[in-house]
Amino acid sequence: MTEVPWEPGEALRDIAELDLDRASRRGYPEAVYCEGKTAAQVGAIAAEVGARGVRTLFTRAGDDHARAVLAHLPDAAHDLTARLLAWPPEPPEPTGGGVLVVAAGTSDLPVATEALLVARHLGRSADLVVDVGVAGLHRILSRLDQLRSARAIVVVAGMDGALPGVVAGLVSAPVIAVPTSVGYGAAFEGLAPLLTMLNSCAPGVAVVNIDNGYGAGHMAAQIAAPVPD
Amino acid sequence: MTEVPWEPGEALRDIAELDLDRASRRGYPEAVYCEGKTAAQVGAIAAEVGARGVRTLFTRAGDDHARAVLAHLPDAAHDLTARLLAWPPEPPEPTGGGVLVVAAGTSDLPVATEALLVARHLGRSADLVVDVGVAGLHRILSRLDQLRSARAIVVVAGMDGALPGVVAGLVSAPVIAVPTSVGYGAAFEGLAPLLTMLNSCAPGVAVVNIDNGYGAGHMAAQIAAPVPD
Amino acid sequence: MTEVPWEPGEALRDIAELDLDRASRRGYPEAVYCEGKTAAQVGAIAAEVGARGVRTLFTRAGDDHARAVLAHLPDAAHDLTARLLAWPPEPPEPTGGGVLVVAAGTSDLPVATEALLVARHLGRSADLVVDVGVAGLHRILSRLDQLRSARAIVVVAGMDGALPGVVAGLVSAPVIAVPTSVGYGAAFEGLAPLLTMLNSCAPGVAVVNIDNGYGAGHMAAQIAAPVPD
Amino acid sequence: MTEVPWEPGEALRDIAELDLDRASRRGYPEAVYCEGKTAAQVGAIAAEVGARGVRTLFTRAGDDHARAVLAHLPDAAHDLTARLLAWPPEPPEPTGGGVLVVAAGTSDLPVATEALLVARHLGRSADLVVDVGVAGLHRILSRLDQLRSARAIVVVAGMDGALPGVVAGLVSAPVIAVPTSVGYGAAFEGLAPLLTMLNSCAPGVAVVNIDNGYGAGHMAAQIAAPVPD
Amino acid sequence: MTEVPWEPGEALRDIAELDLDRASRRGYPEAVYCEGKTAAQVGAIAAEVGARGVRTLFTRAGDDHARAVLAHLPDAAHDLTARLLAWPPEPPEPTGGGVLVVAAGTSDLPVATEALLVARHLGRSADLVVDVGVAGLHRILSRLDQLRSARAIVVVAGMDGALPGVVAGLVSAPVIAVPTSVGYGAAFEGLAPLLTMLNSCAPGVAVVNIDNGYGAGHMAAQIAAPVPD
Amino acid sequence: MTEVPWEPGEALRDIAELDLDRASRRGYPEAVYCEGKTAAQVGAIAAEVGARGVRTLFTRAGDDHARAVLAHLPDAAHDLTARLLAWPPEPPEPTGGGVLVVAAGTSDLPVATEALLVARHLGRSADLVVDVGVAGLHRILSRLDQLRSARAIVVVAGMDGALPGVVAGLVSAPVIAVPTSVGYGAAFEGLAPLLTMLNSCAPGVAVVNIDNGYGAGHMAAQIAAPVPD
Amino acid sequence: MTEVPWEPGEALRDIAELDLDRASRRGYPEAVYCEGKTAAQVGAIAAEVGARGVRTLFTRAGDDHARAVLAHLPDAAHDLTARLLAWPPEPPEPTGGGVLVVAAGTSDLPVATEALLVARHLGRSADLVVDVGVAGLHRILSRLDQLRSARAIVVVAGMDGALPGVVAGLVSAPVIAVPTSVGYGAAFEGLAPLLTMLNSCAPGVAVVNIDNGYGAGHMAAQIAAPVPD
Amino acid sequence: MTEVPWEPGEALRDIAELDLDRASRRGYPEAVYCEGKTAAQVGAIAAEVGARGVRTLFTRAGDDHARAVLAHLPDAAHDLTARLLAWPPEPPEPTGGGVLVVAAGTSDLPVATEALLVARHLGRSADLVVDVGVAGLHRILSRLDQLRSARAIVVVAGMDGALPGVVAGLVSAPVIAVPTSVGYGAAFEGLAPLLTMLNSCAPGVAVVNIDNGYGAGHMAAQIAAPVPD
Repeated sequence: MTEVPWEPGEALRDIAELDLDRASRRGYPEAVYCEGKTAAQVGAIAAEVGARGVRTLFTRAGDDHARAVLAHLPDAAHDLTARLLAWPPEPPEPTGGGVLVVAAGTSDLPVATEALLVARHLGRSADLVVDVGVAGLHRILSRLDQLRSARAIVVVAGMDGALPGVVAGLVSAPVIAVPTSVGYGAAFEGLAPLLTMLNSCAPGVAVVNIDNGYGAGHMAAQIAAPVPD
Repeated sequence: MTEVPWEPGEALRDIAELDLDRASRRGYPEAVYCEGKTAAQVGAIAAEVGARGVRTLFTRAGDDHARAVLAHLPDAAHDLTARLLAWPPEPPEPTGGGVLVVAAGTSDLPVATEALLVARHLGRSADLVVDVGVAGLHRILSRLDQLRSARAIVVVAGMDGALPGVVAGLVSAPVIAVPTSVGYGAAFEGLAPLLTMLNSCAPGVAVVNIDNGYGAGHMAAQIAAPVPD
Repeated sequence: MTEVPWEPGEALRDIAELDLDRASRRGYPEAVYCEGKTAAQVGAIAAEVGARGVRTLFTRAGDDHARAVLAHLPDAAHDLTARLLAWPPEPPEPTGGGVLVVAAGTSDLPVATEALLVARHLGRSADLVVDVGVAGLHRILSRLDQLRSARAIVVVAGMDGALPGVVAGLVSAPVIAVPTSVGYGAAFEGLAPLLTMLNSCAPGVAVVNIDNGYGAGHMAAQIAAPVPD
Repeated sequence: MTEVPWEPGEALRDIAELDLDRASRRGYPEAVYCEGKTAAQVGAIAAEVGARGVRTLFTRAGDDHARAVLAHLPDAAHDLTARLLAWPPEPPEPTGGGVLVVAAGTSDLPVATEALLVARHLGRSADLVVDVGVAGLHRILSRLDQLRSARAIVVVAGMDGALPGVVAGLVSAPVIAVPTSVGYGAAFEGLAPLLTMLNSCAPGVAVVNIDNGYGAGHMAAQIAAPVPD
Repeated sequence: MTEVPWEPGEALRDIAELDLDRASRRGYPEAVYCEGKTAAQVGAIAAEVGARGVRTLFTRAGDDHARAVLAHLPDAAHDLTARLLAWPPEPPEPTGGGVLVVAAGTSDLPVATEALLVARHLGRSADLVVDVGVAGLHRILSRLDQLRSARAIVVVAGMDGALPGVVAGLVSAPVIAVPTSVGYGAAFEGLAPLLTMLNSCAPGVAVVNIDNGYGAGHMAAQIAAPVPD
Repeated sequence: MTEVPWEPGEALRDIAELDLDRASRRGYPEAVYCEGKTAAQVGAIAAEVGARGVRTLFTRAGDDHARAVLAHLPDAAHDLTARLLAWPPEPPEPTGGGVLVVAAGTSDLPVATEALLVARHLGRSADLVVDVGVAGLHRILSRLDQLRSARAIVVVAGMDGALPGVVAGLVSAPVIAVPTSVGYGAAFEGLAPLLTMLNSCAPGVAVVNIDNGYGAGHMAAQIAAPVPD
Repeated sequence: MTEVPWEPGEALRDIAELDLDRASRRGYPEAVYCEGKTAAQVGAIAAEVGARGVRTLFTRAGDDHARAVLAHLPDAAHDLTARLLAWPPEPPEPTGGGVLVVAAGTSDLPVATEALLVARHLGRSADLVVDVGVAGLHRILSRLDQLRSARAIVVVAGMDGALPGVVAGLVSAPVIAVPTSVGYGAAFEGLAPLLTMLNSCAPGVAVVNIDNGYGAGHMAAQIAAPVPD
Repeated sequence: MTEVPWEPGEALRDIAELDLDRASRRGYPEAVYCEGKTAAQVGAIAAEVGARGVRTLFTRAGDDHARAVLAHLPDAAHDLTARLLAWPPEPPEPTGGGVLVVAAGTSDLPVATEALLVARHLGRSADLVVDVGVAGLHRILSRLDQLRSARAIVVVAGMDGALPGVVAGLVSAPVIAVPTSVGYGAAFEGLAPLLTMLNSCAPGVAVVNIDNGYGAGHMAAQIAAPVPD
């Protein structure tokens, strides 16, 4: 796949000005946030992506968006849980340090999987640990070695959002915390875990948007990037 | 000290209608919330309390309030940290189960001390553990025996408010959680730990108002009350 | 039914790490919060539960979740109002003190029923009183004897959420308050009764999450647990 | 005192355009909200009021404001608790129905007193009942006759704000509810009782701004106004 | 129709404890808030209402609720705009003063109609004025005579919610303000007009819950009630 | 098309009091906000509009609303992206300065298109630039000439809402900022970009309601209006 | 005064990078927001301003800030009400259209005066109208001619914030609305009027930050700027 | 200085359980958050720190706290702007990558300085750039080389909080964003920039608490830590 500079085609001109030189400028592929776009718009973008051969992720893709992408990029990888499509389907060979994605509960899997796949498609090796919330501390404490071997850790949690602070107190790597919109009414669609994470007693926690697995995986990949000589 | 029914005196009639039969109706002494009252009003209430000989707590007492109480009840016990006065000064002989008050940080001491003293003045034995927040899990884990021997546990925490949920996952006793207004800006004066506690993943946590050590100590004393035959 | 330690099977490994020794550690059965999980995930958990013979509750179960549970645990008890499944279907023989669940209005029945059933499945005797909101005080005042005979009281209310504070003023038992998302716009999906309950003038009220009947029933069962010798 | 039309004097022209024909247009005297005004501005207004002989209230008056008013209207009535000045000092002869002001707690006295005095200065007979909050229901229940004899009732409460709904369930007169900024942290400076009152289960409650005793007294006076033939 | 005391029948006992003596205690009929109740529950209540012959309103009735009511009370009046059913269908003969309901915009009609019908079924004469928002002041100014002849005014408005304060400045009757959940995003489902109305510069405005036409009509009927001799 | 004064017909009288002299009073056509109105109501208004020949916009029109308008005004222009209908379909000949509408992302197109069309139908020339968000500054910096040639600029953005402040720092024309409800959870349906825009470091930004392309286009048209001699 | 390009002096380098070519880039002078800066920092900036001879405003200047400015720019104009200093003290000769600043109440004077002076120092003629809130509509209606002769109108209001929408409905010029933090508790420090203004029913209103008279005056000056040939 | 394990002394036992093995467990020194602690408590901690010779930071230290620290650790470094004390006073020899701290405005200096010093005391080389907010883009664009040479970037901003997203779009290093409580009313004490930063369009931004320079400096030091072989 040759990545070449390009100009948006006619169909795209009125709806999007893709930032496809991001790879050269920032070192990471473009991502297309599908929510709020029509399937036709996403399809037009996918067509351009294919024509130019630029590595691209499509995030928050509903069924219609996915169909539109696959019509133009039939070999794209599509993860239903993460609602993510990636093209080309295979991530690059991993470099840098390892990323560990930790999900407090099963309901946090969609967001955690998105973070996991994004980290991989940005060039890191990445693993996933699920259902180790603080209500049963033995679950996370039994993972200390795995936690301490990661260069960057993403912790995904809804409800009380307490897990990232607990993890940060156990390791020296930085923790990226992702609140999810999972929980009873007073979780207020993710506001509660968001505030918990921002107020973490343990230093070494920084927070991304509610349900934003993409942002967390991206940040973790940057942190664990190979250090230039 | 004989507790007798009474009628408010003349000075008190226009400002307060004390609920002094609460002891007989609910089994616990009256409490006077001083904040928002003038020192003169609190003094008038203290005079009546002394005249009638009714066990009473004065909570959230500023310096002026304290002086007004002590003018009429010179032997009242006054705890500066908890901003609490109690009359008579000695708690009753403890009955029922034990109460344990746990404070996540040193800054939570005023609220925790209020809970501790209230539980004692309502007739329970009560102990205090301080500075065992989740940023260093070994601190709370080293207290497991003490935690598991309590009949009711009060956990006081600001910032991320994560400690009550962690404690609840370790014990079978009910946990009363008290958020405090301690922390950086996004703690929003206690809103963040309040939401964390309400969203605790572990069942067995119920929450009282921000900085309300009185309410927590009262609730714990009720939970640990001796079971009637 | 023999409760034995177990290890999660293959199908479960990537989605959940059940805390099935909670019974031994905390003395209460596991609960699976179904909302946010797929039916397939809940089904896999149910299969493991059956294979191991561990007492388990499934809360917030939608129709799909219920079908998935019943496919693996056909004799599970299913309460449609509470959206709760329990396996084994019969609660244990009640011990400890009595729990009383009080619902302010008919619309609060789903949450109140969840609390009622959870208390029973955790081993308490429990009763339900419905539609005794403060707009007609005679309704709650006519229940004083029933209220005063309970060891723990759960009060469920939406709208103004005033009932728990009124009840707490009438009894010496602790009151667990549950706000519900019932009411006009300015109830803000349960925020209004949540705040009311946290600000209860009467001490002896602690609060759980909006619509969280499970948490309230669990807390009440802990409070009313038999006191160890 | 002759009430005559007038034009603002020179000193006043750049800072205020008094609505002094309000008495004729709406039937009630002007009120000057002092907070946010300088003492000099309030003094200039008081001078004009005196010059024109127009019945006027000065609300939310701090010490400086009060001195400025009294410099120009030395016979004005000044209530320190309510932070209210009235000129002329004597209310008009009462007409219409009676107004009853009910305060849940002693800390609500400043707001309740403001409502009481405003109702009187707008021409109603008005009485005050204090410290009858719902934590001890017997206190309000013992006042049923007094409650039922009023044409309009103002209920002032902070914390849980539950009293107005309870009162409305006991009477047929309309209840004006006033939340106060009294209470622990999660009262959020009056937001909690405000929401409680807006969500009152009992119909017959309408709400004014936090701590707005003036607005409540005014509204009650309008409701209890003599019915024109 | 004879209104007699009654006891709830068997079917009703577990779901509702109707406050059917409200008519005698407060002077106004019972209202059943349908939202959050099942159609079966509402039907059971309607059956009892019919059996006892007690004047009753059913508010916030969806299609299913309406069918359930009409199955038992086939002659009930059903207003689709207001989502209200009334039985018996005819309001009582009007007494007391007149009620005027004012709606700022066409979108406010459902709430305004509910207020209008409730006022009538509580025994007042009531009229409706629509689409007189402050964006074109001439519309409300041309109604001054009508506004000034009412004993109580209900003003319903969404978006900026400015109309009640403007109306209150023009009349001497009390204004009950009802915010509606109509408007662009920053109306926050009615929060914006709610705050506007609570902060009305003109005294003489009190506020009920968002979209609560029932509460406003009820309050207005109480205000305009005939004065007892 | 002759614009003549008119009176609402019979069908309209009870639902709307159109402000059709707005054109003469303010110089701009009437707009009918369709959301919250029934299709029948919108149809009745459209019929009157056609009968009177008054230039009118229908905003926030769903499919049903659009059908109802087109039934009475079959030649109306209908833009599906903007959910806007305009009658007569052609905008007036442009006068005054130019309006530039800038959309941060493709998802902001519906709101941006509404602003664009409204500005045109109010008599301005207007252009649209899309997908120039601050994540890739070169995109907006390459448009400096176009930005600096406009008399008024509308900037539409969701998520962080940072674009209006950046644009305002580059030009001397006033910027009207429109937050959109596009983004992850902590965008809180547009609250985040709304606050960002209100807090713009660069002066020269004023803000309209979330997703309110109509208001922005209207304001821009007023700013760019021809200056009277 | 010659405006020349410059480089920050030594003292300034570590604390501020003034944007002094703003005049050439945007056409308006620099403004220094004093709040949050130390007096020493403001003094250092003032020294540079004087050395370079660049027209500059100092906003939100407390007493200490003012002294620091006047020490270096002794002829600067200082308005105490607006907390504004301007140097050089005289505004430029006015060009373009007229700006009218309207304040709803006397308490809004500080913010309104800031807007007035900023508009003048940015080169517009500007007038002020005070105390014309909607509680007495005759006050604003008597100013119609003045309102309709302005090219841009700033409306400053606290409490209900209703005045900007009412003004916008009366004129064809754009209205810049400024909420102030004046009012009772539920004004929430300006949140209530902010929301009111964003939700204005009348188009032609755009909003700046709470108490931001500077931003409003700046925006109005831009709108009323002379149109380039 | 020898860092040895230790046990809290008598004076400390009841108020704090220092986590002094954090250095060994996590690799970073202890920090004592002074706000909410009394000077006596902070002094007792400082005494222990000195006795044990453990590297420690004291953050958010008011004048009283600082005096208490210096009484026991007279050679501690004290930065007044950052309200930070460090002991021993000299940071360790820097290792790992470089940290760059960027402050949008002069008012953000206290928080930015705290981040800068913390990064240095945790062992990184760190630089500071001030007053490069987005209102004048040329300021940040002229720093591209400096920005691109950092291994981790901390961006501190109040008001609109737009700078971190703009910076993240220009570099490949991760950006830690710190909102400050600087700005007009609708910044809501830092809530506005907090939300902006969480919603950053550019990936590569994660957020810490409002005004939490300590947390940001700590996180940046972890990100830029030397990679273990």
